[in-house]
Amino acid sequence: MSQKNTASPARRLLDALRGPQLTRAMGAHNPLSARLAEEAGFDVIWSSGLEISAAAGLPDANILSMPDCLRAATDMAAALSVPVLADCDSGFGNVNNVLHMIRSYEARGVAGVCIEDKQFPKLNSFVEGDQELAPIDDFAGKIRAATECREELVVIARLEALISGQGMDEALRRAEIYERAGADALLIHSKLSEPDEVFAFREAYDGDLPVVVVPTTYHRVTVAELRQRGFAMAIYANHSLRSSIHAMRGTLRRILQDGTTLHVEPDIAPLKEVFDLQGVHQMLDRQSHYEAAGRELAEVER
Amino acid sequence: MSQKNTASPARRLLDALRGPQLTRAMGAHNPLSARLAEEAGFDVIWSSGLEISAAAGLPDANILSMPDCLRAATDMAAALSVPVLADCDSGFGNVNNVLHMIRSYEARGVAGVCIEDKQFPKLNSFVEGDQELAPIDDFAGKIRAATECREELVVIARLEALISGQGMDEALRRAEIYERAGADALLIHSKLSEPDEVFAFREAYDGDLPVVVVPTTYHRVTVAELRQRGFAMAIYANHSLRSSIHAMRGTLRRILQDGTTLHVEPDIAPLKEVFDLQGVHQMLDRQSHYEAAGRELAEVER
Amino acid sequence: MSQKNTASPARRLLDALRGPQLTRAMGAHNPLSARLAEEAGFDVIWSSGLEISAAAGLPDANILSMPDCLRAATDMAAALSVPVLADCDSGFGNVNNVLHMIRSYEARGVAGVCIEDKQFPKLNSFVEGDQELAPIDDFAGKIRAATECREELVVIARLEALISGQGMDEALRRAEIYERAGADALLIHSKLSEPDEVFAFREAYDGDLPVVVVPTTYHRVTVAELRQRGFAMAIYANHSLRSSIHAMRGTLRRILQDGTTLHVEPDIAPLKEVFDLQGVHQMLDRQSHYEAAGRELAEVER
Amino acid sequence: MSQKNTASPARRLLDALRGPQLTRAMGAHNPLSARLAEEAGFDVIWSSGLEISAAAGLPDANILSMPDCLRAATDMAAALSVPVLADCDSGFGNVNNVLHMIRSYEARGVAGVCIEDKQFPKLNSFVEGDQELAPIDDFAGKIRAATECREELVVIARLEALISGQGMDEALRRAEIYERAGADALLIHSKLSEPDEVFAFREAYDGDLPVVVVPTTYHRVTVAELRQRGFAMAIYANHSLRSSIHAMRGTLRRILQDGTTLHVEPDIAPLKEVFDLQGVHQMLDRQSHYEAAGRELAEVER
Repeated sequence: MSQKNTASPARRLLDALRGPQLTRAMGAHNPLSARLAEEAGFDVIWSSGLEISAAAGLPDANILSMPDCLRAATDMAAALSVPVLADCDSGFGNVNNVLHMIRSYEARGVAGVCIEDKQFPKLNSFVEGDQELAPIDDFAGKIRAATECREELVVIARLEALISGQGMDEALRRAEIYERAGADALLIHSKLSEPDEVFAFREAYDGDLPVVVVPTTYHRVTVAELRQRGFAMAIYANHSLRSSIHAMRGTLRRILQDGTTLHVEPDIAPLKEVFDLQGVHQMLDRQSHYEAAGRELAEVER
Repeated sequence: MSQKNTASPARRLLDALRGPQLTRAMGAHNPLSARLAEEAGFDVIWSSGLEISAAAGLPDANILSMPDCLRAATDMAAALSVPVLADCDSGFGNVNNVLHMIRSYEARGVAGVCIEDKQFPKLNSFVEGDQELAPIDDFAGKIRAATECREELVVIARLEALISGQGMDEALRRAEIYERAGADALLIHSKLSEPDEVFAFREAYDGDLPVVVVPTTYHRVTVAELRQRGFAMAIYANHSLRSSIHAMRGTLRRILQDGTTLHVEPDIAPLKEVFDLQGVHQMLDRQSHYEAAGRELAEVER
Repeated sequence: MSQKNTASPARRLLDALRGPQLTRAMGAHNPLSARLAEEAGFDVIWSSGLEISAAAGLPDANILSMPDCLRAATDMAAALSVPVLADCDSGFGNVNNVLHMIRSYEARGVAGVCIEDKQFPKLNSFVEGDQELAPIDDFAGKIRAATECREELVVIARLEALISGQGMDEALRRAEIYERAGADALLIHSKLSEPDEVFAFREAYDGDLPVVVVPTTYHRVTVAELRQRGFAMAIYANHSLRSSIHAMRGTLRRILQDGTTLHVEPDIAPLKEVFDLQGVHQMLDRQSHYEAAGRELAEVER
Repeated sequence: MSQKNTASPARRLLDALRGPQLTRAMGAHNPLSARLAEEAGFDVIWSSGLEISAAAGLPDANILSMPDCLRAATDMAAALSVPVLADCDSGFGNVNNVLHMIRSYEARGVAGVCIEDKQFPKLNSFVEGDQELAPIDDFAGKIRAATECREELVVIARLEALISGQGMDEALRRAEIYERAGADALLIHSKLSEPDEVFAFREAYDGDLPVVVVPTTYHRVTVAELRQRGFAMAIYANHSLRSSIHAMRGTLRRILQDGTTLHVEPDIAPLKEVFDLQGVHQMLDRQSHYEAAGRELAEVER
């Protein structure tokens, strides 16, 4: 579809994480939202567990299974040039499940996976409820297994210590262990409305891994601040979904109230834009081209 | 999930088509968009081929297969109380494919299917290109097969004669034959910017079947006019998707420009709304309830 | 496809469990093996986790996910008249996962599910390794949730106390609690080479539920003995798969050795048998019938 | 899982086709049957449309869709070291469908695809019925599209002229055109009970492509003869399935008759063999290994 960079998606993701720039990743729930993010200029697509679950009308609590998440990430990877990083919750079970997951994602061209140190089934980090951490040895074993068995799939270890109320020391202790276990990067998660916690983590962490943040609740933070603080990547994890909900809700109510779609027309994409996003004209051009090629091949012979 | 009416979804769809009101159907591409339409008050969900294809980043040209469309419709049906009517293109092949399709949709709780009298693979009706009609006997045989082999799944025959430039007489001729073949309703499709053609069809058609319209291009038409002209159902076939594209495109560009999500916050659904749409709190309540029930059951015994 | 009994599959499974006969269930891993078992005369098909996993080349340890198991059971249910009982391991997670599973299986025409009181991820009961039981309250809560939220899907509680070395008292204690929680039947599992344990359980259990056995290791036991002891159902859980492995292994080696398939021909089904099992001729007959019907419908009009 | 050769599966398949030996491919319908063929020593696995359809209880007539076939081939490729060659019928539609198919198979590690010059939906070549050929320009265009858009996926053009009764000249004419269109190899199909036709084709064809045969009906032919005649590959397309049907049918009947599984035990694989094929012990070893690694990582730190 799109022109592919010659380096593999995994390689490009790793380079982006290790590079001097702040890499910007945007959450998506299907190839369309992913393509819009690529088109806007985001560097990486986050195949978001929250978005995919919400799109399916289900809680973000491992109600969807690995194959559902895999399918979403695979379809996005097939539709894009930029690398896809897949939110893989807590790894869908024990170390055996993690290994099956690693092989499955790697075999389908996904660039990287992120697993978090919570129990299975996990609950979305912003929901009040059971946010118990996985035993440290258990999770370290998963990271070791994942990184020894992948070929080049990027493996990010997500730290939930601050989410679960275990505190900064626990986060730092686990960061060090996950680094030794082989993680390619760390994601430090926080649900505060200011970035103080993640700033403190970034300052205190003296290891070598790139550090990733998800500024969902501390939404005032800017790219410039994050770059200056030394973060490697920011993931805007659910904004395309939330944008679409807000818009659809308004459009649908208005159509019902108005009894016509006339008044929503200015606020919805024209069909032509939809067709462009689907690549309809490229498809028809290719079709014409190969039908003509076929006729030519058949005629030469006569 | 939701409280189910005791009549089957198929029965409720048929009653809606035959009832005196204009039934309003809204297109959807996943359970989330379907749930938003149900919540807004639409009577029926249209599992739209265009929306599902576009969400997958693919042209609406039978690039997606029957199982992909089936899965989307099944997931919507599972998430909703209102009936789901599935856009089934031209039936995914010949009469054998139609029969496999009918059994598959019926077995998963979808209320109805709509098939159109075009060839396989079909091309979206609003795209300039090959819009050749299926031979009339071929399509009549499919409608007969579908309606003889279903148990109660509603089968709508979609007329593409006006789209393909075959004219009103061909549309009316086919309408009569599809009615005799057993169709439960007719969908007359038009790509004009005014509803004249569909009004003319409705007036000239003197059979007994409910008639459905898809006011995509003639978007000035109102519910009141359609009701007064005697139509049974209007399908707003792609507006939730188009609304979401417009909104996501704007939101994503703005986040990238602003270097923060701060300024898009007022225009995106808060996380709480996302959780509500996912049913997170009902899930946690049920979980607590059954965990308590389990403890009680286990204790009694001691 | 086949002529359907008017009672629902769930109802027929429940009646079979409660009836005076010993119901005989045969394990299957795909519609073909299920159809062979139906054709041979088995009453119920066991959609076997071991068989499905092995067919996928994966350990029976929840490496496959719920959607994989659901798909296999759904495809079998679509291909058969006899009820399909699905092996659902330990319920694929916590009570939320069980509820999602119940709705998914019920919505696709599967007759019943069986869940076992082990942890997630589970390990096949005949493999030496971690066979730890689920806490009793946890499992009782799942059974209560499953039976309160299903419409008529049959729910069987599988007791793993004897497998895990917890002994007969634990098995009986749990049997009583699961009965109170609402289970429709109990499955008592054993890996001994004689049926003594399951006989002892059947004798000591004084509740009202039908009791099911899986005579894999105690393969000398006969239907007559099981009936006389008061069991409700015997599941031959993996014999079609094991039969196919033995045969394929031999056939494949021989073809390679012989350098021709000539000598294996007497030991493989002729193509005609394959076509019959696929229903090729019924399909072609239906196709001819509806193509003729279509021509007739089209001509009348002219 | 297995030790992977460093060359890609596609490269190894192409080398095998071009090499001096007769490559032997065995049909399979799931990872288990594929693994048995790999274990027996076959060089290539044929992901057989007939086997996959029959396993699903459905006719081999494009009732199953591309995603069903893709899934089967992908699962086999993930489970094996030897290359998987996928039977892709007539390409699942027009040239647009072929291109979507090519990208999908290539992205999932399948080594090659084979498409045949028949119409969609196709009917199994051994079934009496509609075996009409695709227009030559149409199929040549598909081959050109497939080979220009793949990266290294092998594309085999299957000639159905002898099946459809169009004769040797048509077969040879098409062979030449498909070669010019870019095919990597030709498959000449025949349903005679002797190999005369394919021998005649091989002798008359003076192009440069490797030629593949499927000795299903002419089952007396030997590997030595095929090699000597200059064929590149023989595909035993459905023997593992047919072997399993014969065996399961006998086993199931006998269990029902005997009222016990005692007497079938010698003719079915012991559970231990099943576990070995599933890789249960490798999984448990890896699990222990990584759990220990996790504990070590966690302790060092204390």
